[in-house]
Amino acid sequence: MTDFHAVAQQFTDYYYATFDGNRSALAPLYAEESMLTFETNQIRGVSGILEKLTTLPFTKIKHEVATLDAQPSGPDGSIIVAVTGKLLLDEEQRPQSFSQTFHLIPAGGSYYVRNDIFRLVYG
Amino acid sequence: MTDFHAVAQQFTDYYYATFDGNRSALAPLYAEESMLTFETNQIRGVSGILEKLTTLPFTKIKHEVATLDAQPSGPDGSIIVAVTGKLLLDEEQRPQSFSQTFHLIPAGGSYYVRNDIFRLVYG
Repeated sequence: MTDFHAVAQQFTDYYYATFDGNRSALAPLYAEESMLTFETNQIRGVSGILEKLTTLPFTKIKHEVATLDAQPSGPDGSIIVAVTGKLLLDEEQRPQSFSQTFHLIPAGGSYYVRNDIFRLVYG
Repeated sequence: MTDFHAVAQQFTDYYYATFDGNRSALAPLYAEESMLTFETNQIRGVSGILEKLTTLPFTKIKHEVATLDAQPSGPDGSIIVAVTGKLLLDEEQRPQSFSQTFHLIPAGGSYYVRNDIFRLVYG
């Protein structure tokens, strides 16, 4: 049986390092049927998702994961990953809390993101 | 096509009203393969989930949903629901932020919760 916790850890390590370093390199993680909810925006498909991620109105971002949970979401090996954490934008001193849910689907020996829901959490 | 936003809204309205009013009545929402991550606890199956939910160390709880997002999670009509919000315990005056992800699977004209991941979010 797949170690879904290890997959989730490896995925989120890669995802946030890439997001913080070079957002355009996230493209291969998504597929045509992928959906992104980013705050109140809803986007479907790789090109729209990439356009959204690469035109966000900040230049520097640093994610810090506080909690990472994973569960198998079905018999096909897909995995739901739920993250909470903090992020720091540009020169801001005060981190903001966020919540993000991913649905990872196995394909070709790896996984792609079918669902991605991101929200800031206001305390 | 199913209006998955309406399903998510209806589900969360019912879930949190029932959680806040009578947690043992949540049993029919879960199935044997259901999984609950509640903070650092991981539980599988209806009876374990219900035991966890009904023995949480507070008597009064009130959830308030701040954001509710939903996406279809696959071609079978299943839905991923991501919630952020606040909850108030017993006589506390200060609400705590939470994040909760549900995976709803269609069955018999309704839905059951296959995956449920709950975390408090510390600001």
